[in-house]
Amino acid sequence: MASGSFPVQADPTDPEAELEGSSTPRPAVGADAASLVARYVQVRDFTRQLAAPLSAEDCVVQSMPDASPTKWHLAHVTWFFETFVLKPQAQRGFDYRVFDPDFEYLFNSYYNSVGAQYPRGQRGLITRPDLATVLAYREHVDQALARLIEGEPVGQAVELAGLIELGLQHEQQHQELLLMDIKHALFQSPKLSAYAAQREPSGVALRSAAPSAALAYIDFGGGLASVGHDRRGFCFDNERPRHQVHLADFRLANRLVTNAEYLEFVAAGGYSEPLHWLSDGWARVQSAGWRAPSYWLQRDGAWFEYTLGGLVALDPAAPVCHVSYFEAEAFASWAGARLPTEFEWERAAEVSAQRGQADVAAGNFVESGRLHPGAAPLAAGPQQLFGDCWEWTSSSYAPYPGFRAAPGALGEYNGKFMVSQQVLRGGACVTSASHFRSSYRNFFYPHQRWMFSGIRLAR
Amino acid sequence: MASGSFPVQADPTDPEAELEGSSTPRPAVGADAASLVARYVQVRDFTRQLAAPLSAEDCVVQSMPDASPTKWHLAHVTWFFETFVLKPQAQRGFDYRVFDPDFEYLFNSYYNSVGAQYPRGQRGLITRPDLATVLAYREHVDQALARLIEGEPVGQAVELAGLIELGLQHEQQHQELLLMDIKHALFQSPKLSAYAAQREPSGVALRSAAPSAALAYIDFGGGLASVGHDRRGFCFDNERPRHQVHLADFRLANRLVTNAEYLEFVAAGGYSEPLHWLSDGWARVQSAGWRAPSYWLQRDGAWFEYTLGGLVALDPAAPVCHVSYFEAEAFASWAGARLPTEFEWERAAEVSAQRGQADVAAGNFVESGRLHPGAAPLAAGPQQLFGDCWEWTSSSYAPYPGFRAAPGALGEYNGKFMVSQQVLRGGACVTSASHFRSSYRNFFYPHQRWMFSGIRLAR
Amino acid sequence: MASGSFPVQADPTDPEAELEGSSTPRPAVGADAASLVARYVQVRDFTRQLAAPLSAEDCVVQSMPDASPTKWHLAHVTWFFETFVLKPQAQRGFDYRVFDPDFEYLFNSYYNSVGAQYPRGQRGLITRPDLATVLAYREHVDQALARLIEGEPVGQAVELAGLIELGLQHEQQHQELLLMDIKHALFQSPKLSAYAAQREPSGVALRSAAPSAALAYIDFGGGLASVGHDRRGFCFDNERPRHQVHLADFRLANRLVTNAEYLEFVAAGGYSEPLHWLSDGWARVQSAGWRAPSYWLQRDGAWFEYTLGGLVALDPAAPVCHVSYFEAEAFASWAGARLPTEFEWERAAEVSAQRGQADVAAGNFVESGRLHPGAAPLAAGPQQLFGDCWEWTSSSYAPYPGFRAAPGALGEYNGKFMVSQQVLRGGACVTSASHFRSSYRNFFYPHQRWMFSGIRLAR
Amino acid sequence: MASGSFPVQADPTDPEAELEGSSTPRPAVGADAASLVARYVQVRDFTRQLAAPLSAEDCVVQSMPDASPTKWHLAHVTWFFETFVLKPQAQRGFDYRVFDPDFEYLFNSYYNSVGAQYPRGQRGLITRPDLATVLAYREHVDQALARLIEGEPVGQAVELAGLIELGLQHEQQHQELLLMDIKHALFQSPKLSAYAAQREPSGVALRSAAPSAALAYIDFGGGLASVGHDRRGFCFDNERPRHQVHLADFRLANRLVTNAEYLEFVAAGGYSEPLHWLSDGWARVQSAGWRAPSYWLQRDGAWFEYTLGGLVALDPAAPVCHVSYFEAEAFASWAGARLPTEFEWERAAEVSAQRGQADVAAGNFVESGRLHPGAAPLAAGPQQLFGDCWEWTSSSYAPYPGFRAAPGALGEYNGKFMVSQQVLRGGACVTSASHFRSSYRNFFYPHQRWMFSGIRLAR
Repeated sequence: MASGSFPVQADPTDPEAELEGSSTPRPAVGADAASLVARYVQVRDFTRQLAAPLSAEDCVVQSMPDASPTKWHLAHVTWFFETFVLKPQAQRGFDYRVFDPDFEYLFNSYYNSVGAQYPRGQRGLITRPDLATVLAYREHVDQALARLIEGEPVGQAVELAGLIELGLQHEQQHQELLLMDIKHALFQSPKLSAYAAQREPSGVALRSAAPSAALAYIDFGGGLASVGHDRRGFCFDNERPRHQVHLADFRLANRLVTNAEYLEFVAAGGYSEPLHWLSDGWARVQSAGWRAPSYWLQRDGAWFEYTLGGLVALDPAAPVCHVSYFEAEAFASWAGARLPTEFEWERAAEVSAQRGQADVAAGNFVESGRLHPGAAPLAAGPQQLFGDCWEWTSSSYAPYPGFRAAPGALGEYNGKFMVSQQVLRGGACVTSASHFRSSYRNFFYPHQRWMFSGIRLAR
Repeated sequence: MASGSFPVQADPTDPEAELEGSSTPRPAVGADAASLVARYVQVRDFTRQLAAPLSAEDCVVQSMPDASPTKWHLAHVTWFFETFVLKPQAQRGFDYRVFDPDFEYLFNSYYNSVGAQYPRGQRGLITRPDLATVLAYREHVDQALARLIEGEPVGQAVELAGLIELGLQHEQQHQELLLMDIKHALFQSPKLSAYAAQREPSGVALRSAAPSAALAYIDFGGGLASVGHDRRGFCFDNERPRHQVHLADFRLANRLVTNAEYLEFVAAGGYSEPLHWLSDGWARVQSAGWRAPSYWLQRDGAWFEYTLGGLVALDPAAPVCHVSYFEAEAFASWAGARLPTEFEWERAAEVSAQRGQADVAAGNFVESGRLHPGAAPLAAGPQQLFGDCWEWTSSSYAPYPGFRAAPGALGEYNGKFMVSQQVLRGGACVTSASHFRSSYRNFFYPHQRWMFSGIRLAR
Repeated sequence: MASGSFPVQADPTDPEAELEGSSTPRPAVGADAASLVARYVQVRDFTRQLAAPLSAEDCVVQSMPDASPTKWHLAHVTWFFETFVLKPQAQRGFDYRVFDPDFEYLFNSYYNSVGAQYPRGQRGLITRPDLATVLAYREHVDQALARLIEGEPVGQAVELAGLIELGLQHEQQHQELLLMDIKHALFQSPKLSAYAAQREPSGVALRSAAPSAALAYIDFGGGLASVGHDRRGFCFDNERPRHQVHLADFRLANRLVTNAEYLEFVAAGGYSEPLHWLSDGWARVQSAGWRAPSYWLQRDGAWFEYTLGGLVALDPAAPVCHVSYFEAEAFASWAGARLPTEFEWERAAEVSAQRGQADVAAGNFVESGRLHPGAAPLAAGPQQLFGDCWEWTSSSYAPYPGFRAAPGALGEYNGKFMVSQQVLRGGACVTSASHFRSSYRNFFYPHQRWMFSGIRLAR
Repeated sequence: MASGSFPVQADPTDPEAELEGSSTPRPAVGADAASLVARYVQVRDFTRQLAAPLSAEDCVVQSMPDASPTKWHLAHVTWFFETFVLKPQAQRGFDYRVFDPDFEYLFNSYYNSVGAQYPRGQRGLITRPDLATVLAYREHVDQALARLIEGEPVGQAVELAGLIELGLQHEQQHQELLLMDIKHALFQSPKLSAYAAQREPSGVALRSAAPSAALAYIDFGGGLASVGHDRRGFCFDNERPRHQVHLADFRLANRLVTNAEYLEFVAAGGYSEPLHWLSDGWARVQSAGWRAPSYWLQRDGAWFEYTLGGLVALDPAAPVCHVSYFEAEAFASWAGARLPTEFEWERAAEVSAQRGQADVAAGNFVESGRLHPGAAPLAAGPQQLFGDCWEWTSSSYAPYPGFRAAPGALGEYNGKFMVSQQVLRGGACVTSASHFRSSYRNFFYPHQRWMFSGIRLAR
């Protein structure tokens, strides 16, 4: 995600496939044309809805090299279907006319196998094609996809269905990136206005109704544990193969670190004391002038936070969000705790789900419409595991034992980012619930913080 | 102009004012309300016309720190009237409501006396206010100005008329910047489309009908010469005071250097041979990878040039344009010639005008609608002195003897840029003829080349 | 090591200490004064011997921010003893006079607990104190240490002995850094002369007598394995606690990748094809202009390698050295293999040692005097596991489960580097054998390559 | 001088040569072999004396790209004689063996005609050849030069004498650079020790005995004035041709601005108020964090200044030194004055010399041994015109009308620096009196301040 579009892959070559009783990858939806079309329409429409509150001006700017313009996201995810579904089908005889040959270069993110790419840092300079043309491009591709799916006995075309599902999962990742990026862009205009007019800070939607639960630690037993995706439904290749790890006993916090708790760290001079920080982290604090999480502003002594609903008073009970790995690690160190490994997190999530104490469907995901993390419920068991904020882990992003990249362009995606980044788990309030599973691995560089990233402590 | 808006000033404190029989600065137009309103409307409308072919997306982007978005230009020139005319009048009782208090910060270019400024390099991130709001801002200020001028016995308010004229001259400078900047921005989109649909390369408007005149040198006698503005009509403070300089005899080329001539330099390895270049110039050639003037592209061996009318074949007879001082100086050195001083240029222009061989009104200025330099006519006397391309001089931008900056914010403008830049003379095809005079001094850093800058040789 | 001096610690708070039947850390040597003095003298003398072939000029320069001058190394390791041994003893009554109070600031590497530090990137500008003064500083501290050890019933001062051992291990790390850094510095002078006159390329010491063994893979069984230091003798805190990991079956190459093999990658266009590279790696190849490992030079078509013995023809049978993680990973990917994890490496080393197929004492370490890796012997079992080149692993540098930093300044060292770096194993031809053990973890950033780093493949 | 060695040239092609009754350039000394040898020995010895107090370590470091190591200066000036005198003579049969062929690359400063150059910013990394070898190089060249001069009937070899004189003038420029550069280098070591032991701050040599004269302005009449060198003795090509300029009446301060006066500017918040500064100057104040002239330090509220004699209390009566053009211009603006043009300065110097009020021989030049500017005498007429500090002028460094660069490598030197720099006049306490004349033009970039640069006001 750090690079703008996830490395994704349906993993058709998995060596364990036969052992698991299935010789083909499975799309997330049933393999009939109607349901595939329905899911396609739903996902594609949702992207358009996300862009709807924005003006053409909002959609063109790029506020930093890590972010991309909304218009670029709208086009790139469409390019993905054109490049990896429609063009190969056209070579086999499907009637498809490329919308604009220049788009192959313009909207390729990083696929060297496909060809050269327009410079990433200059995506905000593409005023032509304009937004209307890009929306027409979407329409053009959508109509072709519909024709393709309906004309095809998909029961005999599982691979095609898998590719389409991959394109949809890819688009869901870009929906989250779109929200992250537009939040960053709107933050540059001094107006600090809300992403959507109807989302003006209401004091209701974003504020917690009650204080969050007290911080407590939940015990989890160690030993050999299986981690990674079990091949029930879709996953990316970086979640595979499922394999065993050995864990010591561990304890995990019952909820995310709150703004109130993080504020104590700030007030205690956390950003002035090198001893709390990783060496690279302290260098970053100084070079970037960090004094608080991203989007925090202090005015007349009071702290505010910029949200997609506009500027609001900092909610003490809500989870701290938009912190870098360096900040998460420094906070944990200051608090006498540590961050969990990605496997501790996954183990705890699976155990809690089995115990009925954690449920993806109940998480604060993008479907809730809040677009901001909220306070933890006063309930037993681990809270906020799913949704709200991505949780930094102490695990670096690395291939699982036996990982192999797929051949061809689609294999270019995941392996090539497996260095110098940290894994985050759990999804966020801007992630689709239908896109999430507990084996999901997100990854960012330790200094990045424009994603919705928070902290869960471990011991 | 290098900094995005010229230092400008009506020079009310000129020590020679009394000697010249006038105790007040004079606006360029007659001091009656009707003509002032007419000129105001004309200049302001022209800005809007320049922006009209552009989409809101085109208007928001900033393609480099030296350039500004069209929307920013539209707002900043309006801010100038609000800040230096309307707000002071409101303090004296004129009924004026500030359109938006945030604009003082957002659209201040570099006036430290007025207050802090939104970071220059981030002007392209201001999506809100949107273009429609900025156009409403223009309307709001225009109505107030109209009320002010009509309600005011301007015959008794020469100072006010001078300030308004200053604002209009300022806006004309930004009209040129707008065209320079949008050309640079559109060049970033791979489509290389024309600025305006009706300006698609026609092969007629931009191509020369005939070869240019042969290069020849015209003799001008030396001795003591008076240079600087003579106070007939408007001028900026950097053109004053008029004073004497001693010139040796000199010779000036009869026209600008053509693309064909410059191409010889390129073909002869001009960009590979350090001996032709100033030391700083050679360093820039290497760090920036220059191989030709800005906007030149080579495709399949043939040279093309991006113009505001789109990509066209390089016209051998047209003047070379968009060269840096370093390139102009290197070319002159390679050609066994030199660049003129700004006073040689001014002397030649005045002498030629007296001889009837040069006429501002006949120049290729923005009023011609060509927006690109054209080939020199086959005529006697110096050609292309006015319009077509700004002409680099070997003079650094420095104060004239006795120059004094005005008190207050308006005095902040000119003096503070008087180091490390070179003077250019003569106006260009994107300059207003009504804004130009032969004492006009433009200035840019020696490495800059996105303005319409060309070369005239001297000996 | 990447930061110039290892985070090091005797691990006195290890939770397993009691289980292992010892309540105190143990120095590597016997706890009698005579043997401690002997080891102290041996290590300190060796540092001086390493500096002996160098002129005062050689000793002062710093060729890049990652490297330090020889003089700085000579002083910093002395400062370590003064700061962590002599000053605390002086507070308890030991008669010690600080050599120069300014040195606390000047030769502190990164210990924020101790105080501010002279800027790292400017170490090469310290001409005063000069080399003679720094050598006098060493003498001053050595005499005080000798007095301290002899006057102290060390049997009752195990902690002191542990600190001194820590200082010696620290100095051994800097011996390796000194050789890495001076190699880099001497490479900047066009003479490409040898580190020491007597080390001029002889064609004997550095060239292999015979071709290296054919590449083969050795099988190792998976399952639960114990990794980390077992507390027999000295270790750094990052090797602790010993703990269990689960490994799948794996295969490890019988020797390091040779120059001949790497040359095939170069000749096959390895540095021109993005598909072989990690995304960050490809970006580095382009920004740094890499075309081959560090210290390789091509002259008239033939490849040469700069060594501490001067410039020599590239030895096809010797291991490729001075490659970054990016290059190691790209090579492995191109070769259809992968890099081992640090635990696979450690497991293989322990198993091989038990089988009598690997022996630290037989490795090409600094004691051999060759200062360059050599070809692998034609023998059964894994070759070159110990010495020759540090071996990149696919493991990021992270704390072991249960790792805790020590309190105080000495705890500042290890944990704070545990992000964004990769672990290397095995030691190199510039490492002391007496400093090495199979649980040893070295670490560098993935782009660094001035250390003696090589490649061992796994599957 | 800004680039490390002046563009220099004996101007043999001067078009006015015949008019002035001489067809050949003239060396500064009489054209007999004995006196030429004597001068050669004197200048070359003085360079060695300047390096004598320094250790080999002091001589190798380069503290910033603008500065060069002492060892490099020692070698480069020798290279100049080898390249431009001995090698051409060897081609004509003179018996000369090149000392080391690698030096052509290593010690070439910027002569593209001669060949490629070792990267300027890495001169501090050349530890080999060492200092002793470079001193042997000097000896080798000196002996050859002596043989050459004595064996040659110099009366018939005026051109050769001119070239040797050029080499000596070049070496005198580098003597000044050597002192500037070593001052900068020693300032990086926290000891802030004196350049030479015998120069430890004595409180006598560097402190003024009395307050400086009160600031007053001296009137000079305007009109046509001749400026530039009159061909009596040696000059560089940038001082030619002598030509006429028109000056208005002007007033020049009777002495340099003192530390006390500059301190008022500092205390008045001069470095915090953008309105005093040129736009580029203010940007530099902020990016570089300037708060006072270079080498000023504040300790416990009191101001100190680092000098070649070590750290001393700031002398209120001595001239402010080590200021950039930006600071000089801002100070003048704050003081309600301005800087003189280079022609005003030259005119005032010539008039004052004619009046017997200014005398190069009485100036505080390097021959005084003080190596620091001193307070102005209480005397009539302009003080400190010659020596003490180079005086910033408002003139940019540009060619005089009719300037032509010489053909060949020696013509590469002067013209290519004529952009973006400002002229300084008057010489400094580290300049040789025998090297100075009132037409002398020094030049630096407006942000530079490690040279001995001060301020004289004008009106």
